[in-house]
Amino acid sequence: MTVRAFTLADATLERSPGQDADVFVGNLVDERDGAPVTIGYGRYGPGVSLAETMAVDDVMIVLEGRLTVESDAVALDAGPGAVVHMPKGVAVTIRAGDEGAVTAYVTYPHWRPAHA
Amino acid sequence: MTVRAFTLADATLERSPGQDADVFVGNLVDERDGAPVTIGYGRYGPGVSLAETMAVDDVMIVLEGRLTVESDAVALDAGPGAVVHMPKGVAVTIRAGDEGAVTAYVTYPHWRPAHA
Repeated sequence: MTVRAFTLADATLERSPGQDADVFVGNLVDERDGAPVTIGYGRYGPGVSLAETMAVDDVMIVLEGRLTVESDAVALDAGPGAVVHMPKGVAVTIRAGDEGAVTAYVTYPHWRPAHA
Repeated sequence: MTVRAFTLADATLERSPGQDADVFVGNLVDERDGAPVTIGYGRYGPGVSLAETMAVDDVMIVLEGRLTVESDAVALDAGPGAVVHMPKGVAVTIRAGDEGAVTAYVTYPHWRPAHA
């Protein structure tokens, strides 16, 4: 494997599987590349919310906008530059702020086969 | 484990092991937490460069400033919002721009025991 660099423009964003809300994800590195982690960008529409039980460890880095991540009745607010760690097995509700949000994510192991 | 959110202010930055240059790293989640990945923030001084052969897969997200990552005679430029994947085993030279840079990183497996 070689070093690769990406920007949001490199990602092909698709609606997040199983979600009706405006949550879009685009993998840049995943199980097809032979790397141990999946890397991608996500985009959340204004005010959308998404409830999920994590199938993998997911690290989300907020690049634009704001998100609130609620788990165990605790709500964590995350703006640009914040990093949120959502461990495998936890139940979370992610809510985007009024301007929506753009994130980068890294999951271990790969989220797509774990999600299927 | 529970969901956790961090900002740069939560990190205790220390000089990167084995480096004389102004490169500082601060883990927020690592082998002591029972997670499969290490998560942290890094800070590069203006113009510093760092050569390393990757002991782990390292995903670097540029939050502020610019970095160039050189590997196999190819130089990749990364500014705010860019994500750089440095797979285990590759040799890289990371150079910070004139304003230095702030990054978030996610490694698999944990970089510190692999680096020791």
